[in-house]
Amino acid sequence: MDNQLYDFGMVGLGVMGRNLLLNVADHGFKAIGFDKDPQKTSSFETAATAGTTVKGVNTLEEMVHQLSTPRRIMILVPAGKPVDDVIESLLPLIDKGDIIIDGGNTYYTDTLRRYQYLQPKGIQFIGIGVSGGEEGARTGPSMMPGGDKTAWEHLRPILESIAAKVNGDPCVDYMGKGAAGHFVKMVHNGIEYAIMQLICEVYDLLHRGGGLNNDELHKIFASWNEAELKSYLIEITADIFRQKDDIGNGFLVDSILDKAGSKGTGKWTSQIAMDMGVAIPTIDMAVTMRNLSALKQEREKAEHLYGSRSFSQAPFASEVNSLTTDTRKALYTAIILSYVQGMAMLYTASQELEMEIPLHNAVKVWRGGCIIRSTLLETFYSAYKHNPQTSNLLLDETIASLVKDNIGSLRKVAALAATNGFPAGGLMNALTYFDAYSTGRLPLNLLQAQRDYFGAHTYERIDKTGKFHTQWV
Amino acid sequence: MDNQLYDFGMVGLGVMGRNLLLNVADHGFKAIGFDKDPQKTSSFETAATAGTTVKGVNTLEEMVHQLSTPRRIMILVPAGKPVDDVIESLLPLIDKGDIIIDGGNTYYTDTLRRYQYLQPKGIQFIGIGVSGGEEGARTGPSMMPGGDKTAWEHLRPILESIAAKVNGDPCVDYMGKGAAGHFVKMVHNGIEYAIMQLICEVYDLLHRGGGLNNDELHKIFASWNEAELKSYLIEITADIFRQKDDIGNGFLVDSILDKAGSKGTGKWTSQIAMDMGVAIPTIDMAVTMRNLSALKQEREKAEHLYGSRSFSQAPFASEVNSLTTDTRKALYTAIILSYVQGMAMLYTASQELEMEIPLHNAVKVWRGGCIIRSTLLETFYSAYKHNPQTSNLLLDETIASLVKDNIGSLRKVAALAATNGFPAGGLMNALTYFDAYSTGRLPLNLLQAQRDYFGAHTYERIDKTGKFHTQWV
Repeated sequence: MDNQLYDFGMVGLGVMGRNLLLNVADHGFKAIGFDKDPQKTSSFETAATAGTTVKGVNTLEEMVHQLSTPRRIMILVPAGKPVDDVIESLLPLIDKGDIIIDGGNTYYTDTLRRYQYLQPKGIQFIGIGVSGGEEGARTGPSMMPGGDKTAWEHLRPILESIAAKVNGDPCVDYMGKGAAGHFVKMVHNGIEYAIMQLICEVYDLLHRGGGLNNDELHKIFASWNEAELKSYLIEITADIFRQKDDIGNGFLVDSILDKAGSKGTGKWTSQIAMDMGVAIPTIDMAVTMRNLSALKQEREKAEHLYGSRSFSQAPFASEVNSLTTDTRKALYTAIILSYVQGMAMLYTASQELEMEIPLHNAVKVWRGGCIIRSTLLETFYSAYKHNPQTSNLLLDETIASLVKDNIGSLRKVAALAATNGFPAGGLMNALTYFDAYSTGRLPLNLLQAQRDYFGAHTYERIDKTGKFHTQWV
Repeated sequence: MDNQLYDFGMVGLGVMGRNLLLNVADHGFKAIGFDKDPQKTSSFETAATAGTTVKGVNTLEEMVHQLSTPRRIMILVPAGKPVDDVIESLLPLIDKGDIIIDGGNTYYTDTLRRYQYLQPKGIQFIGIGVSGGEEGARTGPSMMPGGDKTAWEHLRPILESIAAKVNGDPCVDYMGKGAAGHFVKMVHNGIEYAIMQLICEVYDLLHRGGGLNNDELHKIFASWNEAELKSYLIEITADIFRQKDDIGNGFLVDSILDKAGSKGTGKWTSQIAMDMGVAIPTIDMAVTMRNLSALKQEREKAEHLYGSRSFSQAPFASEVNSLTTDTRKALYTAIILSYVQGMAMLYTASQELEMEIPLHNAVKVWRGGCIIRSTLLETFYSAYKHNPQTSNLLLDETIASLVKDNIGSLRKVAALAATNGFPAGGLMNALTYFDAYSTGRLPLNLLQAQRDYFGAHTYERIDKTGKFHTQWV
């Protein structure tokens, strides 16, 4: 029958939807895509690899009727109301047992709401985080699906085919119940924010502090990408320092305005972590720095008032070799601590939000295809294989030895930044996280005393259980 | 008529409600309180000052019918649904033009919702933040009312009478439209979180670092409270170090567990600041540290793994005089920067959430009665009188000179903490805020390059307007 022809349907043939669907077709699956814009459907068909089976249609009915059942229908439209609208349009057309997949950048509670809405109707729902950008979608993304486990099993052959591969393992696996897929993707993005901010801080120290030019920075980052820091973000940073400016002279990076945009997922990560009581200060600082970067005019006024931070000479130029070594180790440690914070957040979400996230699956699928892929993820993957339920990766002995070997440089670099006026809050907050997490005695006994003093909020004691209140004199 | 007798009604005679209402009565107003618990109404009547007019009743009807009109009815019950329940119970009993006041610790969007619900019914609604704890409520709190301006004018004589006074000015004034009162109180609490955290960090440096005992700490904080740091929180900290432990031996502060609780208002401040794109990293870190403090068992495990931070000798004991001076100046600077962050948040809320907050009123009412009262607030009050619409207090010349004089010590102390493993994230984040805000050139040009590289998010240029995208090689 003609309506059994296609294996996978896509709603929305924007760049991401189109590329993912072409990827599906490239792996031998018959792929059908809907978009109301006929230009998009025809350019989708034109872009298909010769010999693959693709079709673009301009009504949902045509797509739905030509899918094999249970139908696999992915939605890739802007997050929010458009997703709900597509679901409502699909419902009269599809059957019990069909699978709807939301591949957008969706806030996890929206995914949970849709999951709970569709379950009693017999429609299986998967929220899937997709990382790797346009190119990753075409050639091999990292994917984080969560929701109905039986639906995942039905999607598995296709998703494993199109995913990035690392040592033969596909970079897709089940992330847990309900909204776990979008939740894991959100934390992925939070870690991404942190690592990008840390790289910027190190760039600042090497460039303004060490006096290194773009050629030198390119070489340093390229060499870092050959060793323990090997990762996508270090790799593209090395590339960026080579890019010539085709409008002005010199290198493009020097002409780019220091005002950072964001699409909000870093912010969500910080806000939700606070709701769960989880500490992710390096991610928080990455969000903060983007917000401060937006105040360009105020910053210029303030610089005028407080004195310029442009140095007549790069202050660390004479010790640039040790600076390069220390920033490398500091960056490495702070990046470890960023993953640690994100994974501790997933641990808590797994428990408290009842997502039952297999933590090893998260680090496994991040090893390839996504923005935060790095060799470090192999280390974390091993740690979780060794102890799947560790609450914090800092408690793993292998990771402990990496941190111990390098934390001294993070201390040096943070102190150097503080002394010389470099805003290196990401590095500092990574250090603070480590120092606070690894002490059995924080000074917050005093804070509890203050709270009891002015608000009778009570306190606990070190030597007895129970809540205590004192009439302070 | 008997039902015109009372000037002010209170729903809920818990400690806060009772004390506020006794305060109202002490100032010559006739005060009536409702609580369904007869013990609370009778103990309220018993506690009244001789010669004052108070009455406790056990039905809302009795209270409403004995109030002069337009009625002034304050609700002081736990935030959330109980407030809605009281409002629903009051609605059939009261008349158009009557004023309902929510004095609880309410999330500002709830206040906005209730305001919008009651306005078409002709009921005036005021959300009021009350600070000062139980004692402040009884003898003179700081109060932050927002909402209907005509309602504020009708409440003004009573609220001005019962408020704390500074130089004859009452610590209550109009905070702006809609939910401005609860919003300002929330930011007050965020600043409170930050200052408490900063004090804890300085305590840690002086105690574990400088080897100072509680007697010495008491003297230092008491002397700090005589000069530029003079404030309620420094004052009670000095007191705390004197408090003997009546269960164990020695000083109470040493027996208190380092696990901090919270009621969530600091977290709200951070989350809402992120929604508005406002940077308040010192407050964020205060929230983070409370969260990390909760992980007592994990911290002890980690300390075991990474090595104890208990020093055989206090590392800075030999330089304790300079440490004391530097921590004083560092604390002063970081506290200034905490107020600065909070006020910048109110500036943005005033504009973007259309609250029209008179910023000078916020710092004016904080000068007395509340937890964050300090001599610094006079300085901020002057700054706003000089320039009511400054977007950031760091741009004020008087404040700039205070910061310039003391920032060097904040640098020294932050570097010392980083080098020696003291988790002083609040101090560090205050410094980062200053260093990032006062530079015209942040390294986030690189971050925009990265975003354009992997996600085609575009960037702006320093030399041309518009959005640009590059095909990175």
